[in-house]
Amino acid sequence: MATTLGPNQYGKAEVRLVTVEREGPVHHLRDLTISTALRGHLEATHLTGDNADVVATDTQKNTAFAFAKQQPVGQIEDFALRLGRHFVGEFGQITGARVLISEHGWNRIDVGGAPHDHAFSHGGGEQRSTAVTIRGERAWVVSGLTGLVVLKSTGSEFHGFPRDRYTTLAETDDRILATAVTACWRYRTTELDWAASFADIRRLLLETFATKHSLSLQQSLYAMGEAVLDAHDEVAEVRLSLPNKHHFLVDLAPFGLTNDNEVFYAADRPYGLIEGTVRRTEESPEEFADADAAGLSWHPLPAF
Amino acid sequence: MATTLGPNQYGKAEVRLVTVEREGPVHHLRDLTISTALRGHLEATHLTGDNADVVATDTQKNTAFAFAKQQPVGQIEDFALRLGRHFVGEFGQITGARVLISEHGWNRIDVGGAPHDHAFSHGGGEQRSTAVTIRGERAWVVSGLTGLVVLKSTGSEFHGFPRDRYTTLAETDDRILATAVTACWRYRTTELDWAASFADIRRLLLETFATKHSLSLQQSLYAMGEAVLDAHDEVAEVRLSLPNKHHFLVDLAPFGLTNDNEVFYAADRPYGLIEGTVRRTEESPEEFADADAAGLSWHPLPAF
Amino acid sequence: MATTLGPNQYGKAEVRLVTVEREGPVHHLRDLTISTALRGHLEATHLTGDNADVVATDTQKNTAFAFAKQQPVGQIEDFALRLGRHFVGEFGQITGARVLISEHGWNRIDVGGAPHDHAFSHGGGEQRSTAVTIRGERAWVVSGLTGLVVLKSTGSEFHGFPRDRYTTLAETDDRILATAVTACWRYRTTELDWAASFADIRRLLLETFATKHSLSLQQSLYAMGEAVLDAHDEVAEVRLSLPNKHHFLVDLAPFGLTNDNEVFYAADRPYGLIEGTVRRTEESPEEFADADAAGLSWHPLPAF
Amino acid sequence: MATTLGPNQYGKAEVRLVTVEREGPVHHLRDLTISTALRGHLEATHLTGDNADVVATDTQKNTAFAFAKQQPVGQIEDFALRLGRHFVGEFGQITGARVLISEHGWNRIDVGGAPHDHAFSHGGGEQRSTAVTIRGERAWVVSGLTGLVVLKSTGSEFHGFPRDRYTTLAETDDRILATAVTACWRYRTTELDWAASFADIRRLLLETFATKHSLSLQQSLYAMGEAVLDAHDEVAEVRLSLPNKHHFLVDLAPFGLTNDNEVFYAADRPYGLIEGTVRRTEESPEEFADADAAGLSWHPLPAF
Repeated sequence: MATTLGPNQYGKAEVRLVTVEREGPVHHLRDLTISTALRGHLEATHLTGDNADVVATDTQKNTAFAFAKQQPVGQIEDFALRLGRHFVGEFGQITGARVLISEHGWNRIDVGGAPHDHAFSHGGGEQRSTAVTIRGERAWVVSGLTGLVVLKSTGSEFHGFPRDRYTTLAETDDRILATAVTACWRYRTTELDWAASFADIRRLLLETFATKHSLSLQQSLYAMGEAVLDAHDEVAEVRLSLPNKHHFLVDLAPFGLTNDNEVFYAADRPYGLIEGTVRRTEESPEEFADADAAGLSWHPLPAF
Repeated sequence: MATTLGPNQYGKAEVRLVTVEREGPVHHLRDLTISTALRGHLEATHLTGDNADVVATDTQKNTAFAFAKQQPVGQIEDFALRLGRHFVGEFGQITGARVLISEHGWNRIDVGGAPHDHAFSHGGGEQRSTAVTIRGERAWVVSGLTGLVVLKSTGSEFHGFPRDRYTTLAETDDRILATAVTACWRYRTTELDWAASFADIRRLLLETFATKHSLSLQQSLYAMGEAVLDAHDEVAEVRLSLPNKHHFLVDLAPFGLTNDNEVFYAADRPYGLIEGTVRRTEESPEEFADADAAGLSWHPLPAF
Repeated sequence: MATTLGPNQYGKAEVRLVTVEREGPVHHLRDLTISTALRGHLEATHLTGDNADVVATDTQKNTAFAFAKQQPVGQIEDFALRLGRHFVGEFGQITGARVLISEHGWNRIDVGGAPHDHAFSHGGGEQRSTAVTIRGERAWVVSGLTGLVVLKSTGSEFHGFPRDRYTTLAETDDRILATAVTACWRYRTTELDWAASFADIRRLLLETFATKHSLSLQQSLYAMGEAVLDAHDEVAEVRLSLPNKHHFLVDLAPFGLTNDNEVFYAADRPYGLIEGTVRRTEESPEEFADADAAGLSWHPLPAF
Repeated sequence: MATTLGPNQYGKAEVRLVTVEREGPVHHLRDLTISTALRGHLEATHLTGDNADVVATDTQKNTAFAFAKQQPVGQIEDFALRLGRHFVGEFGQITGARVLISEHGWNRIDVGGAPHDHAFSHGGGEQRSTAVTIRGERAWVVSGLTGLVVLKSTGSEFHGFPRDRYTTLAETDDRILATAVTACWRYRTTELDWAASFADIRRLLLETFATKHSLSLQQSLYAMGEAVLDAHDEVAEVRLSLPNKHHFLVDLAPFGLTNDNEVFYAADRPYGLIEGTVRRTEESPEEFADADAAGLSWHPLPAF
């Protein structure tokens, strides 16, 4: 045969699970989007359509729903580990799993100044997420956030870059810096107070973005990752993807007006895109290589 | 001629204006999306391509930017009135204008427990908006909000509806009720403390959604509108568009599990859609008819 | 009571219906998105939550599915009329209905040069749509299309517009003209060969856009509407919404290069937005007023 | 130092380039979205904000525009290679580049049965794309397509899958199979008649989807990849990501109606997601490993 099956996985994507837990009259709401993907000895279905090894994606979905009933969902990292380990443990041909969970936040509606028992408003576009990868007995947990849109109206410069024949950009020592933070970090453990770790990492990302005087978005990126690694021994590396959401100064001179960084227009496209990894030096090269090769920790899929 | 020009307007849509106002080291950030549309004696350009009466959409955009510099933007209602009146006042052939502004909220980033001077995080998907319509000397202000996603995990029933041969829906006395509120309200004035009025109306919409025991989403809608009219003399009518974002109970019986309103899946489509108007009875029928005929107050455009 | 219920409607939105009709081995695929909304004596549910008059939105959805089985779907206009008339005829309290249907096109996949019997590829973003409004015995049919994106690389000018202190736009006698056509037209009848009428109107819109030398997008708009009315007696009026999707000439002078309308960048926002109606002069003013007042024909909802 | 810079890149994303080439009165339109990203010795800007090595993303954008003027754009693979090699060749500190280009198709508008010289309609959601990765002297070309939505109304079965306590899915020997094909394939060369190769690979993907009787979407996926490798020596491997866009049979029994695969509803979420690679066996393992390690060929970025 001239062809062979390479890397592959399959599963159910974007299962929208909402749960209500009751503590007397007080309700607790959880809102998750779950994607599961399984890996293993899956040649038969690809080559002949024999599905004896194919745990149906519908079954994967059912399992997520049933698990949500059998035990409180808990932190998304723990729920993803439970789901992934179940599939790998239950089915011999399934040797690996990847579970992605995004959590959508809700806040209690204030009524007369007090939080309501069972009425909520949606927290907006930011999501907390986790990607758990299982390979046999091993597991990697990469958690993160998306959709955290931030802006500094000063404290950002950009100059000293090389000028070639295609360079027209003016240097600036005061500009708006805006980005939508996508951050993820690989944990060195699979047991942790996930909520506390997440909350503090998020705080550090925000505070560092705010307070670091920025000579380039790359410098902000590195500082943000470094702040996380300095404070959180449980994290091995941090990846950040930071679009530079350009805010251009409007030229008001034709109207006889100055514009001292007062009036901007926000452009949609194109945008800069700064992506980088900050790594803990004491982490062994083998562990980085292993995590990379596992494929996994960083890629939602054999990525395209 | 067998054909004639009917209702029409033209303008620049979705101008993304961001302004920074400085109060010493403290920066104030405003983030608006502005659409202007002009109406008037515009037959020539339609029939012959003679543009002598066409205030270029590019000029409309420039005007918005320049106005943002010449005077602080202030409340979106006032800014929209300034813009609309300028176009109608400046150009004889322009007899009407419609200005839509959406405001995107930003919050200060907390650093060490204190709000930062010039670093902000985006407030999410909810937007405050206004639609100002000018017709000659008259003006209508309709303000509102979009993207306010809310959910009650109990306190909602639905039963007693008619059953025909196509009815399969079970009656329920306890369900999740979730919606994304689009609300707008027509003011009876063009001078007001817009910010205070908006904040209190938003509060009333949220509190009423939360506390009104709901026998139908229509009942919630009416109660929300009524609460606004009862408390705000300056409002003539309230319109609400409330998608019923279905949360279906997952059938866990096949897995030997109960589901006492604990595990739901959130469906994307189809969804219910409840739309209605609550009107002040003391408002004259003429004023309602006039506002409706002006076309305006409620429609972003000769709507499609 | 200080408040009263104004205009309102409710229904099920975006029911995704796909049907397969078999003609021997040849399958015919239909792909529709259906929204139904009912109007009538609906005070009770709004004021007290009494749902005795509320035909459940779930029932509306079921009805659409059942109707698709009981008789071939046929043209979307006929299917919308059947659905709308059913609701108004079946339930005394329901005095009006509005049914929106969008049809998504699919093409047969070519295999060895011949169209396949049962394999299809999606036709892209353009949709054919209809909005049928029923009020008692009367009915209006407004059909149209959305998502028809077109571009002329020459044959478009824009000059002669007024210049005020905020005008910076240069005049041009050669520019790219691009738009995404949203068109709808009100029929004077409820019985017609809808498919033939649609196909020819679509052809006229495209050909007129292509061949009309354009001095303004308004002129193109009017010509497109006029072409439809001239050729189609069954149409009373045409509405067009044409965003001016700007393609700006890139300034290559800094690189020592000319740019003779060769290299452009396509901007997302802001964009011009030209909206207008072309009407048949022989149509009675009463009919225009009636259609407008019915509210209906043009607005998907008490529009926001 | 406890931290160090890991994998990183930066660039300008989604530059919207449109070009017009004139052949007498006949215009040729090209519509591209271009993202460039550079890699190399970029520690300084991350650690200290020294930008002496940072080719500004604005310069990257300018370069794309200028290159489009200096020479006809040609095939997207060649244009991406030109751009990528320029950056790596021009700047010593830049040792690698990644250039992504998506091409949006336009068709000539037919006027009186003949294609128009300079008027076009947009081809819809499908895009042809390429990802070129440069590392020093080496280059990889991965081309593909996205947004090719296809559906078979029969010729698809799914049965024989394992049943555990969470399995409820019924077996079927006749179902709708629908997917949105994302395909990419790595070439073994950097010089080719790219357009011819693309057109024939696209044809094979479509024909194989249509004609392969499917016992699982995995089987269809493998057959599609195999068909490409069998016919195209220039391709080393094919990756496919195939969402299973579920079309569920509507239960019409409550209405006393049968449903013999006639009436379906199309669900948005969740969906199955089948992802896999088909590889040429004669390709050396080193080449696969190299392409994988280069990171590159498959990932738009250090992917998240």
